[in-house]
Amino acid sequence: MRRLFNKIRKNSRSPEDGIFFEKITKILGFEPIELRYYKKAFTHRSTNKVDEKGNPFNYERLEFLGDAMLGSVIAAHLYNEVPSGDEGYLTKMRSKIVSREHLNELGRDFNLLQFVESKINSNQFGDNIHGNLFEAFIGAIYLDRGFTYCEKFIQNKIIKQYVDIAKLEGKVISYKSLIIEWCQKEKMSFFFDFVEDNGIEGQKYFGVKLLIDQKIIARARATSKKKAEEKASQRAYFALQEKISKK
Amino acid sequence: MRRLFNKIRKNSRSPEDGIFFEKITKILGFEPIELRYYKKAFTHRSTNKVDEKGNPFNYERLEFLGDAMLGSVIAAHLYNEVPSGDEGYLTKMRSKIVSREHLNELGRDFNLLQFVESKINSNQFGDNIHGNLFEAFIGAIYLDRGFTYCEKFIQNKIIKQYVDIAKLEGKVISYKSLIIEWCQKEKMSFFFDFVEDNGIEGQKYFGVKLLIDQKIIARARATSKKKAEEKASQRAYFALQEKISKK
Repeated sequence: MRRLFNKIRKNSRSPEDGIFFEKITKILGFEPIELRYYKKAFTHRSTNKVDEKGNPFNYERLEFLGDAMLGSVIAAHLYNEVPSGDEGYLTKMRSKIVSREHLNELGRDFNLLQFVESKINSNQFGDNIHGNLFEAFIGAIYLDRGFTYCEKFIQNKIIKQYVDIAKLEGKVISYKSLIIEWCQKEKMSFFFDFVEDNGIEGQKYFGVKLLIDQKIIARARATSKKKAEEKASQRAYFALQEKISKK
Repeated sequence: MRRLFNKIRKNSRSPEDGIFFEKITKILGFEPIELRYYKKAFTHRSTNKVDEKGNPFNYERLEFLGDAMLGSVIAAHLYNEVPSGDEGYLTKMRSKIVSREHLNELGRDFNLLQFVESKINSNQFGDNIHGNLFEAFIGAIYLDRGFTYCEKFIQNKIIKQYVDIAKLEGKVISYKSLIIEWCQKEKMSFFFDFVEDNGIEGQKYFGVKLLIDQKIIARARATSKKKAEEKASQRAYFALQEKISKK
């Protein structure tokens, strides 16, 4: 029944909506139901749009909602992951994870700017646009699919990929230096092999393969070479963890 | 199957746990599954308790979790209830709802102090104990029954009973004065009829009936006469709203 319903919905979508649907599905890791929430999440106030009741139709209210949902999912994650951390520790760690800088990075990595509808030029947005869109996107997920899917997205696409408690605690400053140190000790060669691409909407991306002794150990892609190296090193670190910690 | 499981669980409970279970069920409006979360929510750090892994067993971490869950449920409520409110408005209204003062009132009204396990005297706790216990209690609901039940509790027992957007916006200062004004205009008599009781654990409660022209219009119960009057007046206002607004 659900499948039939989705099929009807899918066939009634305009070609642009079809592309938007595919892109959002790829980012989410599951299908959106109501595209209008996501459209709202990417509508800038400069469009001066209003909804059928005359209320402003833009992402600013969704930022408020997304910020709250992100805060509670991260709170629950930290509560479960760090049973020894007290209230002050949990509060501090959460601030680090949901820092403006980090939210901007997330928005940039998902390249949410490609979806923005606005009447101003994209260079007039300022840097926080990425984080704001990211928060609004989380708000849209909550409205569209509820808390459980919102949590699923944050777990799979944010926490698993970006939230590293050891690093946030300052115990690990750089995975790249850990990997280099280990390779030198083990007398193994290492090499970061870069490719540059322009993404879809002109945002530069750097892909990197980390080779240890000529073997590809990890891959990553990010908006700067430094970030791509660090991401690949982190993945390599987790892949090699057993070997490294045996040392 | 679930019913059988619950029956086994119920029969294996100690008499004290049975009483605790009944009291918590009454507050929640649904049955708790794991009492240990609620026990933790009422364990003060002065007990110096630790769990099986040696981590402190008290309510302080649960406060962090409950605060986050409360924040996101209230955010979603305001987002839906006030479609015309911008981000700044939503943020301000949420702060009013989750103010320390309001959380203390909630903790006091649910008389959560009756459950506290501590090594210090209850007069040493300070006033914020009520709000802290209340937050921890919300955290326990989340761990025990998940977000949906946590939201259900907050909707039914907090939002419906305590969150009045018109009043928070400052549009209505006092329901009591609205009622008095209306009665005077309509040449009707009004009378607040009080009874005092000592609750279960020595906390004083005031019950009040609001009579208009000798007819009971609303009842309320609170920890002060003023609060009980205001609560009863608010209930009367909602009951009489059609008549009042016709004027």
